[in-house]
Amino acid sequence: MPGSPRVLKSRAMEDIQPYVERLGKNARKASAQLAGLRDDVKSAALRKIAAAIRAGKSALLEANAKDVAAAQHSQMQPAMVERLKLNEKRIESMATGVEQIASQVDPVGQIIEGFVRPNGLRIQKVRVPIGVILFFSESRPNVTSDAAALCIKSGNAIILRGGKESLNSNQAIASIISSALAENGIDTGAVQLIQSTDRALVPPLLKLDKYIDLVIPRGGESLIRAVVSESTIPVLKHFTGNCHIYVDSDVSGIEEKIADISVNAKTSYPGGAVCNAVEKIIFHKGSAPKLLPKVCEALAAKGVEIRGDEAARKLYPKAKAAVDSDWPLEYLDLIVAVKVVDSLDEAIAHINEYGSHHTDAILSNSKAHIERFVTGVDTASIMVNASTRLADGGEYGLGAEIGISTDKLHARGPMGAADLTTYKWVVTGDGHLR
Amino acid sequence: MPGSPRVLKSRAMEDIQPYVERLGKNARKASAQLAGLRDDVKSAALRKIAAAIRAGKSALLEANAKDVAAAQHSQMQPAMVERLKLNEKRIESMATGVEQIASQVDPVGQIIEGFVRPNGLRIQKVRVPIGVILFFSESRPNVTSDAAALCIKSGNAIILRGGKESLNSNQAIASIISSALAENGIDTGAVQLIQSTDRALVPPLLKLDKYIDLVIPRGGESLIRAVVSESTIPVLKHFTGNCHIYVDSDVSGIEEKIADISVNAKTSYPGGAVCNAVEKIIFHKGSAPKLLPKVCEALAAKGVEIRGDEAARKLYPKAKAAVDSDWPLEYLDLIVAVKVVDSLDEAIAHINEYGSHHTDAILSNSKAHIERFVTGVDTASIMVNASTRLADGGEYGLGAEIGISTDKLHARGPMGAADLTTYKWVVTGDGHLR
Repeated sequence: MPGSPRVLKSRAMEDIQPYVERLGKNARKASAQLAGLRDDVKSAALRKIAAAIRAGKSALLEANAKDVAAAQHSQMQPAMVERLKLNEKRIESMATGVEQIASQVDPVGQIIEGFVRPNGLRIQKVRVPIGVILFFSESRPNVTSDAAALCIKSGNAIILRGGKESLNSNQAIASIISSALAENGIDTGAVQLIQSTDRALVPPLLKLDKYIDLVIPRGGESLIRAVVSESTIPVLKHFTGNCHIYVDSDVSGIEEKIADISVNAKTSYPGGAVCNAVEKIIFHKGSAPKLLPKVCEALAAKGVEIRGDEAARKLYPKAKAAVDSDWPLEYLDLIVAVKVVDSLDEAIAHINEYGSHHTDAILSNSKAHIERFVTGVDTASIMVNASTRLADGGEYGLGAEIGISTDKLHARGPMGAADLTTYKWVVTGDGHLR
Repeated sequence: MPGSPRVLKSRAMEDIQPYVERLGKNARKASAQLAGLRDDVKSAALRKIAAAIRAGKSALLEANAKDVAAAQHSQMQPAMVERLKLNEKRIESMATGVEQIASQVDPVGQIIEGFVRPNGLRIQKVRVPIGVILFFSESRPNVTSDAAALCIKSGNAIILRGGKESLNSNQAIASIISSALAENGIDTGAVQLIQSTDRALVPPLLKLDKYIDLVIPRGGESLIRAVVSESTIPVLKHFTGNCHIYVDSDVSGIEEKIADISVNAKTSYPGGAVCNAVEKIIFHKGSAPKLLPKVCEALAAKGVEIRGDEAARKLYPKAKAAVDSDWPLEYLDLIVAVKVVDSLDEAIAHINEYGSHHTDAILSNSKAHIERFVTGVDTASIMVNASTRLADGGEYGLGAEIGISTDKLHARGPMGAADLTTYKWVVTGDGHLR
């Protein structure tokens, strides 16, 4: 396969180590070319990829059908099989996703800051690619094409490692991308799919800090924790999304929309199995008597299981009793826990203690309360009178996202092409000394 | 001492663990207050600190004299003793440094980006403090006051860990800062000095990822490597500064200044013992015959030892022979190695292979060559026709620097107050769903 070393010979470390090093060297070499490419060249390659995805539809569907059949055979959960599945509509949306990324303004070369010092020294902070990115993808095939496209746009080489459930689909996508890159004169080391899903490759990959600059793992919490603990390369990630909605004491104006927002935040993604779904709804005691039962009824009508603390169960007796372990938990399921607090500060303290710093919402009409919540809650995305499900690169206008970070350094929240760049200081003088 | 837990009872882990946890908890608590402080409150506290530094001059000098006496007694290198020493002028410059940071625009609350989506959703990326920073300082006492002031300005709590050679000086500075914070109603957990220089504290400190968000180590390479390998908290740092000057084939206009730039880059800091001093000078073969001997003579006249590759020694026979291990080495001393290359590309490849990605300079009159160098060299600061010594937060107008990063994520090059912040996405709707 173009762009990737051939399949690994064996699981022996003497075969694995040279295999992963070759991946790293290929990527580093390609990244030097990518860093200097003009945007018209990168955009043309991306448009070629989009066209090749459309033209390769039947090969993609065929490869994907193998993955889906194997997944059904292995009795994978139906919601997971659904994520994996490609159809004409999804293939078209992969292609338009790549085209949208092609149309974005190139982040590379942007002058982030520029000024002239009193001594005449000209100082510029110029955006440049990070270099080489190792990406662990989950089962949705569009994630693979989005990630590759975002890396090409931002001038980075990418090494893709997918799960075994999507290997055939990913191979088909990577093959399409490689051919399109080669036809446009771009080093195929720019996008390499790892042609093995063997777990033994992961530790040596995560030690390739000589060639790889950044790791972005997407997938289950256990995979991500393993990556973080083994990697000597910086990692951007989120472990879980234990997202909150706080319903304030003052909800005039927004009151009629609270049940809709809650239902949307919990159920708009199938099975609630997504990181920005709401997991906990906290009511101020002032609004709880009127709104808690109404919100719970609306959620229950959509098949959501309700768990509640003591005060919540007095207002909505059908709720199961929530236990201590509910509060830090991400259900990834049609379950929500509800709670009543005495004050805004209690809500803020609860969210900071048990939340995952991913996305938390306040529904309120009080400017003062909103300001306190926005300042006090330590989270990547704060939603004011909006659904937590809106925390997404596409919704934020980033075009697409390569992931969501709950880290505080470098990038926080949804990450787009610009988050795959760093900068150089370019300082121009005329014989300036110190 | 206000602001810091009392001195550690013993080296036993059952005493160390609660000690470092208390430091972490104090800092986390203070950071919640700091994040919400208005800039006038932070600036007033900083001005109070500056005044207290001036008023506490005799106490500072007395404490510092103890450190200096101990250092001389332990036969520390004179250049290192010189770094450690305080005098009236240096104390005044510590105070004015803090005042300059007080006068900076507050980075917190800045809207980095803001836009309205087609559906009316209002999206803002707002700068917020990172939280708690663990700082390892080197022997210069002004580094301690600069770091504390930058953290207060950017709304972060700082835990300071200094070397044993400067413990008395740092205690005096921390005591002044704590009193000034308390007088201005700021939680003294904002600036805590670790009251022990025991090495046994370091590993448990670096595992406090529950309370600490970022580690910035300054000091020798071995300390920094130990911090990186032990820390579960993100680290921003540079290991070494193996900085290069490339003298191009086309040097018209700048030719007369090349010897001055080289001498400044090597010798303007005492003993050349600083990370942004030049360590390697690479001449294009076209300019080498005329310029290499002249530059070497000028450096030798300032007491610099010259090492050269074969081609360089033909042009300047007094040079010692450089060996392979010279090229990746940071001398931190009055030594420079010189080399002749056939092409600009060879120079770029050499710098990327052996450099430390800290600061590299091109001296040239050719726009095309400068562009290729700027794009091709993977480094934090590129100097065009200027001394490498200018790579500094003060020279770049950041007011002061908490360190220099050769990492690619989050911050690269000199880091000022804004580099101690992250951001939140604040998304405001009116019942918006997805």
